[in-house]
Amino acid sequence: MIISNAAMMRKPIPTLRDIKDAAKNISPYAHITPVLSSTIIDKYLGARLFFKCENFQKAGAFKFRGATNALLNMVDKNNSGPVTTHSSGNHAGALAKAAAALGIECIVVMPENAPKVKVEAVKTYGAAIRFCEPTLAAREYTTDQVIKETGALLIHPYNNFYIIAGQGTASLELLDKQPDLDVIIAPVGGGGMLSGTAIASKAINPAIKVYGGEPMGADDAFRSFKAGKIIPSVNPETIADGLLTSLGELTFEAIINNVDKIIPVSESQIIAAMKMIWQYLKIVVEPSAAVPLAAILENKHLFEGKNTGIILTGGNVDLEKLPF
Amino acid sequence: MIISNAAMMRKPIPTLRDIKDAAKNISPYAHITPVLSSTIIDKYLGARLFFKCENFQKAGAFKFRGATNALLNMVDKNNSGPVTTHSSGNHAGALAKAAAALGIECIVVMPENAPKVKVEAVKTYGAAIRFCEPTLAAREYTTDQVIKETGALLIHPYNNFYIIAGQGTASLELLDKQPDLDVIIAPVGGGGMLSGTAIASKAINPAIKVYGGEPMGADDAFRSFKAGKIIPSVNPETIADGLLTSLGELTFEAIINNVDKIIPVSESQIIAAMKMIWQYLKIVVEPSAAVPLAAILENKHLFEGKNTGIILTGGNVDLEKLPF
Repeated sequence: MIISNAAMMRKPIPTLRDIKDAAKNISPYAHITPVLSSTIIDKYLGARLFFKCENFQKAGAFKFRGATNALLNMVDKNNSGPVTTHSSGNHAGALAKAAAALGIECIVVMPENAPKVKVEAVKTYGAAIRFCEPTLAAREYTTDQVIKETGALLIHPYNNFYIIAGQGTASLELLDKQPDLDVIIAPVGGGGMLSGTAIASKAINPAIKVYGGEPMGADDAFRSFKAGKIIPSVNPETIADGLLTSLGELTFEAIINNVDKIIPVSESQIIAAMKMIWQYLKIVVEPSAAVPLAAILENKHLFEGKNTGIILTGGNVDLEKLPF
Repeated sequence: MIISNAAMMRKPIPTLRDIKDAAKNISPYAHITPVLSSTIIDKYLGARLFFKCENFQKAGAFKFRGATNALLNMVDKNNSGPVTTHSSGNHAGALAKAAAALGIECIVVMPENAPKVKVEAVKTYGAAIRFCEPTLAAREYTTDQVIKETGALLIHPYNNFYIIAGQGTASLELLDKQPDLDVIIAPVGGGGMLSGTAIASKAINPAIKVYGGEPMGADDAFRSFKAGKIIPSVNPETIADGLLTSLGELTFEAIINNVDKIIPVSESQIIAAMKMIWQYLKIVVEPSAAVPLAAILENKHLFEGKNTGIILTGGNVDLEKLPF
């Protein structure tokens, strides 16, 4: 291991330079994902929407970017013990797949209520799973136990310099393909993707507005942003199972300094947005990925006439448990 | 109108040259659709599968290719009355959208049980709809009535020289991107897509095997192919709502001369294949589009070690009525 967890705590917030380094590092492993549009959705909203399709990323979500970047930077491949993390699903699957590609042992802590499809993915990629109660406290406690028992290196799902830098690479690609964006919007759970998105976008073009979409039932980022201090969610509830986590110190700082607005959205609007994406873009996205479009549907005036980039974060959804 | 229906009856089967002409004609209007793969599906089948994603085509299905080619060749824009057709959905939507783009009036005959999403699409594109009983006889009778009342020009959904040539352009693109295919497989309903696929593929590379996948509940092509004469379906029943029609004279001739095998598949395998495509490719396809993969799942030995092209025909599915 070349970087300890203690050393990680002293790392600053990544910059555009770090995100560009991450893009270079992960390029042999990750997909450059497509950007899709729908004339019907654009006409309905009076805006031009550019959907960055991370549902087509390896392991089905953007998380593969950060996980790969973290492993490449934090683990010494020649002298490595296991890595571990806690995750409701996509970071777990991404870390498991990235670790397998790099020949690293991986143990993931997952809440018992994680979507079946995400649990199956982690198993397929060959990682070991420890289940726990679906609370942040139980997740952190179980992860600590794993670290004590195995000496595993923690790859935190979002509050990690290299994870944030890795997630920012999606926006690099989006702005490379579509440089004339007025707005860019991503979902916010733990805040890794929104942090990377905001840092990259504002550094490339300070005039871009950066918004976060967040489920009302898990609106810690909205409340923390307003209060100017971290206020974690207590018993968050939303269909957007990837967004149940609360901001960490690094992501809070990155967001407070670079994001223009956090937009809370209702469950019904998330479902409507998800259905709209499936129907008109003909792609499978998970509920968390539909949160930005839900925010746009509830706040049309903010986006009218605007070229808007949307990070579609992932496509790992139990097809037997669809909300429509 | 520059070509009457009587003159159309004397047109021969299209050749590769006609398909290349069609590709040129429709290029300002149609999308070049992407080709996707899944390492998980490939590993499971021991084959390399290349999915040609016509679900991303305009109006959500390959039918836009043939409809556009037919209108461009059969209609004199400066002196045109309406066009008409009968279709369970995708040809109707495609013709409506293509006619709207070219400023031509369009009246479509649809069975009462056509999927809601397809009926809505036709309305969105501005065409008039006449509903009829869901039988071939009722569809043809109602279409005849429309022609008598309005003088409309019939654009047959599949038994038409320009339609077949237009549908063949999907295989041109697929073989251009992936020239090393050993096998190519498409679904067969009326046979327009399978005819175009087979003509293009065999002319480009006579060694390619061309297969048709067909639902057991609507297996007129399988029976006709075996008998060497057209045996239409009577009361066909399948979840693959785009494949209820029976072969016509032109498509039967093209298929008998160019296709190697018709593979009938069960309803449960169609649903399993559809789910597999949604889950691993992260795209929305309709049941008809899953029929070729269902044929592969039921006949793995035919495809093992083979580079196999699959025409994913469309993505217009009622999300409220999914079979899983």
